[in-house]
Amino acid sequence: MFFHDKHLQYNAKPERPDPLFARKLQEVLGGQWGEISVMMTYLFQGWNCRGPAKYRDMLLDIGTEEIAHVEMLATMIARLLDSAPAAMQEDAARNPMVAAVMGGMNPQHLIVSGLGATPTDSVGYPWNARYTVASGNLLADFRFNLTAESQGRLQVTRLYEQTDDRGVRDMLAFLIARDTMHQNQWLAAIQELEREELETTPCPSTFPQSLEHGEVAYQFWNMSVGEESAQGAWASGRTPDGRGSFEYLANPSAFGEVPELMPADPRLHGTNKPGVVQRALNEMPR
Amino acid sequence: MFFHDKHLQYNAKPERPDPLFARKLQEVLGGQWGEISVMMTYLFQGWNCRGPAKYRDMLLDIGTEEIAHVEMLATMIARLLDSAPAAMQEDAARNPMVAAVMGGMNPQHLIVSGLGATPTDSVGYPWNARYTVASGNLLADFRFNLTAESQGRLQVTRLYEQTDDRGVRDMLAFLIARDTMHQNQWLAAIQELEREELETTPCPSTFPQSLEHGEVAYQFWNMSVGEESAQGAWASGRTPDGRGSFEYLANPSAFGEVPELMPADPRLHGTNKPGVVQRALNEMPR
Amino acid sequence: MFFHDKHLQYNAKPERPDPLFARKLQEVLGGQWGEISVMMTYLFQGWNCRGPAKYRDMLLDIGTEEIAHVEMLATMIARLLDSAPAAMQEDAARNPMVAAVMGGMNPQHLIVSGLGATPTDSVGYPWNARYTVASGNLLADFRFNLTAESQGRLQVTRLYEQTDDRGVRDMLAFLIARDTMHQNQWLAAIQELEREELETTPCPSTFPQSLEHGEVAYQFWNMSVGEESAQGAWASGRTPDGRGSFEYLANPSAFGEVPELMPADPRLHGTNKPGVVQRALNEMPR
Amino acid sequence: MFFHDKHLQYNAKPERPDPLFARKLQEVLGGQWGEISVMMTYLFQGWNCRGPAKYRDMLLDIGTEEIAHVEMLATMIARLLDSAPAAMQEDAARNPMVAAVMGGMNPQHLIVSGLGATPTDSVGYPWNARYTVASGNLLADFRFNLTAESQGRLQVTRLYEQTDDRGVRDMLAFLIARDTMHQNQWLAAIQELEREELETTPCPSTFPQSLEHGEVAYQFWNMSVGEESAQGAWASGRTPDGRGSFEYLANPSAFGEVPELMPADPRLHGTNKPGVVQRALNEMPR
Amino acid sequence: MFFHDKHLQYNAKPERPDPLFARKLQEVLGGQWGEISVMMTYLFQGWNCRGPAKYRDMLLDIGTEEIAHVEMLATMIARLLDSAPAAMQEDAARNPMVAAVMGGMNPQHLIVSGLGATPTDSVGYPWNARYTVASGNLLADFRFNLTAESQGRLQVTRLYEQTDDRGVRDMLAFLIARDTMHQNQWLAAIQELEREELETTPCPSTFPQSLEHGEVAYQFWNMSVGEESAQGAWASGRTPDGRGSFEYLANPSAFGEVPELMPADPRLHGTNKPGVVQRALNEMPR
Amino acid sequence: MFFHDKHLQYNAKPERPDPLFARKLQEVLGGQWGEISVMMTYLFQGWNCRGPAKYRDMLLDIGTEEIAHVEMLATMIARLLDSAPAAMQEDAARNPMVAAVMGGMNPQHLIVSGLGATPTDSVGYPWNARYTVASGNLLADFRFNLTAESQGRLQVTRLYEQTDDRGVRDMLAFLIARDTMHQNQWLAAIQELEREELETTPCPSTFPQSLEHGEVAYQFWNMSVGEESAQGAWASGRTPDGRGSFEYLANPSAFGEVPELMPADPRLHGTNKPGVVQRALNEMPR
Repeated sequence: MFFHDKHLQYNAKPERPDPLFARKLQEVLGGQWGEISVMMTYLFQGWNCRGPAKYRDMLLDIGTEEIAHVEMLATMIARLLDSAPAAMQEDAARNPMVAAVMGGMNPQHLIVSGLGATPTDSVGYPWNARYTVASGNLLADFRFNLTAESQGRLQVTRLYEQTDDRGVRDMLAFLIARDTMHQNQWLAAIQELEREELETTPCPSTFPQSLEHGEVAYQFWNMSVGEESAQGAWASGRTPDGRGSFEYLANPSAFGEVPELMPADPRLHGTNKPGVVQRALNEMPR
Repeated sequence: MFFHDKHLQYNAKPERPDPLFARKLQEVLGGQWGEISVMMTYLFQGWNCRGPAKYRDMLLDIGTEEIAHVEMLATMIARLLDSAPAAMQEDAARNPMVAAVMGGMNPQHLIVSGLGATPTDSVGYPWNARYTVASGNLLADFRFNLTAESQGRLQVTRLYEQTDDRGVRDMLAFLIARDTMHQNQWLAAIQELEREELETTPCPSTFPQSLEHGEVAYQFWNMSVGEESAQGAWASGRTPDGRGSFEYLANPSAFGEVPELMPADPRLHGTNKPGVVQRALNEMPR
Repeated sequence: MFFHDKHLQYNAKPERPDPLFARKLQEVLGGQWGEISVMMTYLFQGWNCRGPAKYRDMLLDIGTEEIAHVEMLATMIARLLDSAPAAMQEDAARNPMVAAVMGGMNPQHLIVSGLGATPTDSVGYPWNARYTVASGNLLADFRFNLTAESQGRLQVTRLYEQTDDRGVRDMLAFLIARDTMHQNQWLAAIQELEREELETTPCPSTFPQSLEHGEVAYQFWNMSVGEESAQGAWASGRTPDGRGSFEYLANPSAFGEVPELMPADPRLHGTNKPGVVQRALNEMPR
Repeated sequence: MFFHDKHLQYNAKPERPDPLFARKLQEVLGGQWGEISVMMTYLFQGWNCRGPAKYRDMLLDIGTEEIAHVEMLATMIARLLDSAPAAMQEDAARNPMVAAVMGGMNPQHLIVSGLGATPTDSVGYPWNARYTVASGNLLADFRFNLTAESQGRLQVTRLYEQTDDRGVRDMLAFLIARDTMHQNQWLAAIQELEREELETTPCPSTFPQSLEHGEVAYQFWNMSVGEESAQGAWASGRTPDGRGSFEYLANPSAFGEVPELMPADPRLHGTNKPGVVQRALNEMPR
Repeated sequence: MFFHDKHLQYNAKPERPDPLFARKLQEVLGGQWGEISVMMTYLFQGWNCRGPAKYRDMLLDIGTEEIAHVEMLATMIARLLDSAPAAMQEDAARNPMVAAVMGGMNPQHLIVSGLGATPTDSVGYPWNARYTVASGNLLADFRFNLTAESQGRLQVTRLYEQTDDRGVRDMLAFLIARDTMHQNQWLAAIQELEREELETTPCPSTFPQSLEHGEVAYQFWNMSVGEESAQGAWASGRTPDGRGSFEYLANPSAFGEVPELMPADPRLHGTNKPGVVQRALNEMPR
Repeated sequence: MFFHDKHLQYNAKPERPDPLFARKLQEVLGGQWGEISVMMTYLFQGWNCRGPAKYRDMLLDIGTEEIAHVEMLATMIARLLDSAPAAMQEDAARNPMVAAVMGGMNPQHLIVSGLGATPTDSVGYPWNARYTVASGNLLADFRFNLTAESQGRLQVTRLYEQTDDRGVRDMLAFLIARDTMHQNQWLAAIQELEREELETTPCPSTFPQSLEHGEVAYQFWNMSVGEESAQGAWASGRTPDGRGSFEYLANPSAFGEVPELMPADPRLHGTNKPGVVQRALNEMPR
């Protein structure tokens, strides 16, 4: 169960309204890597967690914190929208700046939400649950979480560069710092999983490696003319999982056949090879 | 530019048709973590790459290989569908197994694709580009790639367990091995980025940390009653970035105010606080 | 079956083209609360109606009228687009107004539809069927319809304020009036359903209330510090359904346990608690 | 800011696993009218609220409670999935019940989430933010909220009828009771808004009715052959807003013209009427 | 404006309920190539038409007919759902056929629509407006329409094969015949466009061919090892547009360079080539 | 399997950056009719092809070429973005042109991709797989392909008109020429299918026409007042399939009944007709 503290986790006060920036800021609220994504991801990972209790507890702690980040961003966006042009203004036709604002802001901030934040990204695309993952495997998921905190921090720093409003920058500097913490947190949690021998590379480590095709498990296939990719750490030396050595294939060739499909049942009215249809059908497994 | 070799990278021949498994196998073709996702992600990261040439080259090599994985899965799915019930069969009403297959397979495999693979997942949801990322920051992106190879390998091992068809397992064992390689590849590439001082934690490392709010950059906030999360590696000790120490806040409190929004322009016909409207409007920045 | 009268239900003639406003007007054509949404909602509610014939007939009457509203808006939008800059103009680089129009209009109006309306909203997001509902329960559905006519009328009045084109305003004034009618219509229909004892609050009223947990059926749970929400009509007094009295819980506490999930089958390769796995598996229901 | 209490608001323990029902139960978790929809709707309405504080407070209280409902459903679904067939079982090919379960359950519960709940509906379609609304107008929004609690309660009662598991029914009976409360709550809040003269019908009531086309503001247009719809409360008598009387138009006719569009700029390469192109272009507003 | 005739265009009466087939039939109602797609496509093409009046009129005639097809399918689906298992039945656990139906039908037909049709396809994915096109160029659009009637007719014939219900087949035989008509109609309309010299191949024919790169305008590029594609009518002989001859390139080579991107502005915090950053930035166009 | 040639198929070098045009150009990369759509469509049609080998080979040749088109467009877009305003510029508040660019460009090009192309269209909507089709019937699919090359060529010519950058126009002129080829190619392939008697009109031609309702198979139904549509080639004369003659119905009337649905099982809690419920339920097929 959850409780609400009416205070914001951190201040969300711009110096002045800026409807164009409000539109941009939506990206880190409702975009692919926005706060709704991490909030929903961490909560579902926590609720679905079948591993040790400390992981579940930690996931729900950070998931709960992220709700507060959504709250701060929503508040900030509403305030950035305060002076958006809500009605036809006679000077708009003559004042290019007003026209630029009217053209550049998200029209749904006027028409749909009435100067409120929306759970959408900077192009107005709605947040959706395919931005999240909770796989039941904590290593696979913590790698996702580390990614999310990296992409998210990257986007917030980009937004920081695109405004000079000190109130906005103050809040973004708080979010950037929390992302610093959370990147470290997921790196530490990954190390903990490995130290406790719950999971390691290759993930999932509970699948017997003897069942995979070992001869291609450490090969780099060069699929192009030229060999610049041979210069990387992925082309020679020990592999990070400590179980093999990278092998570089300069001119890989295919293992498989040239595929040919059987004709389909004629009652599907597809296009089959002429002649061979009846013969093949006779041989089809039923 | 690209060229096609008519051979498959590896065999894609089931022992026998299995329309129910065909539906499931769609997940790793057209799902969130399927082969289309990594193919498109790596190609776009390569095409957009502004970093050293070896990274660009490597990204396009592996992106090109992934097209071949899509090809193998599409071929396998088409063959698993070979004997799907294409027409009303009198015994279906009496044979529960036939009824179960008709109920359990993806109806679009009959109606839409005529026994062909589709670029959708195991519930028929179409692949979409929000499953990909190419941010311009290679560390943020390689962390995504490592995630994708972890979630993808996890899903393929789960599918391996759910079939006993030796032909299917043979192909999956090839894909699992390639995912082993690719997890190692991204781990090695991340180490290379750090060794070359192109990027490190916290990502993006080019944003001056002095600008973020350092006092919260290494704090774990316990947002719940109880303290199991205090036991983890994320609650004390040096942080993985080597720049700080974790601090555990058992009872964090909010920094911010209780927010109150200004009334909106009445021409938006929203609901404002009575009385204060006119006063506030007079004070609004214009 | 349906027939078409070539006349528009009402005029759709702007005084002058305005590509920026055309983009905005798309919201009430193809947005969440636009005319396509009510057209499809009412038609499907009518086609699926298993209740008295007068409801079915009324639903199909208004659904049919809404097709005409879609037609009017599409026509208006096409005309607002008439003079959009269809080709590179040398002065665009120098004339800020032209640049603002080129930046602010929906590029798909040029590239995709060639100055035609599209079934999308003001940010170009396509209309989709999850905007509709036809549940088989007329009270639940008429409440949706009342909502749709409220959100829709709100959006049209906002658009009215944002233009001074007399032709556009004339058409919007017609649509606003029809929304006035339709709000009244759904309120009247809801009263009729209750008068005829087909449905009432709590909806669905055919589910025996004795089966629900009566002790929480009229309680307001205050989930936050502070008590402003105690001042509302929802915190004390008789409930609108006439069956209870509101009770205000200042400090609610949880009824449930701290949940702990069982480990999963190891063949799913998720992360389980160490040690307890085998024991728990032995006890799993099979 | 938010805090988490590790206890569930109410119990979420099924008597026995049931993967088919788990799939169904997803509808009220991540579907159009599921708990995520009300949680996100109420929170955003609260954060965006510019009206009196008691409304904002109440919205955030109920929004916070809804997070707990999401938590209960996620927990219940994970438990219903406990014994899902995680691996190929030899008897599946012979046991129709096992085959039916394997065909009927959501394959993503095995492949993607590893027996965890997902933020999707009963057909696996991901939750998205277009299921929510926060318009800034409280009457329009409370009507939506009343709808959501009606559609939601309807769906939960339908699910109640489709299981005989006493643990599942126990939790559903709690949710049904809370929906009873919340329907009453929104009805009471609507009455409060009207009593306080903040909003009334037609919504938005701040738009001057003199600007709409009054002659059609209370007319029912019969758009079909036959007149069953004339029998309803919407066809005669005083209108619920108290400002007019319903008028029934048996044979309505169009007000508008037969529309004809101008030719488009030839550089758009669309199809224009031959001959008239050049003339019309000369007359186009530039 | 539109009017409704309460009669169906054709009968929609199954011999008996069949919830599994109801799910399948949704494909041609709300799928990519279903009746909603053609209805919306033809109506929008008509409303946006700037060409000769007979085309506009014809488009709106057929668009209006398609609404009636949606109506017939919705009615049929509702009737096929009549006996769906609406409540827990004790024998379901023992009767494999009941279990198969419960697993195989669309759960939303029970939970969401209460035995009504939904504007979704056979996997429950909602119809969306990206299934339509109205480009302003009638040849491009009529080619789409011809495709839609081909894919649609193909799907209806496949559904015909999968049922033996005489009532269902009777209605499908009507739809198949109308698709025969409509394929012919679009072929005739395409011929008419060409005869009237409004459009021809290559479409759009109003773009001067002298501006395109003529040397590659009639070349087939063989992008693979092997030459089976050389045997087709696309590899030699006169081209269908009568303006060239096909040329077969057995071993095509690239015209372009190996691309290298400039470094990005460092304030975007992406990954650039080391060293060259500052130099390149100095040379960037500003 | 696939290989990569590091050279672009054709040059992709603009004369100068233009972030507004970069946004527009996304339409033909990741839009409904963009290069990703044809790439994925042709590849899946090839992989699923059960017809003669030359068709499969040709499909994979052109599908492989289309990957190169995606590559060229991605490269061009990255270069058009080179000088986008990556940081707050003091003069932006004063320079309307800078403001217009900042308002008009896609904000995700800055925030999400860091000046890279994205797999989305010109309004930022992500590419999705419902833009493709591979039905198993080659005629139905080649008609789609012809449509795609027509809509695609139309969009590229429109974009050509909207820029005067010679580098951009040079690349577009190459793409336009390839679309000329591909339109001809699909027309030739359609003729080949018919010549080889694999498929013809009405498609699918393998469904016995005797089973469809022949009396309506060649009728044009005029669904509106007025008769302009009677003037077209679709209203009289031989039909293009050579199997009938068009018949024009000036005043068509419905074949079907006025539908009435049975009441639903009361445990679904929908709204039924009063009184008749029990009787009807007794007669329901079980």
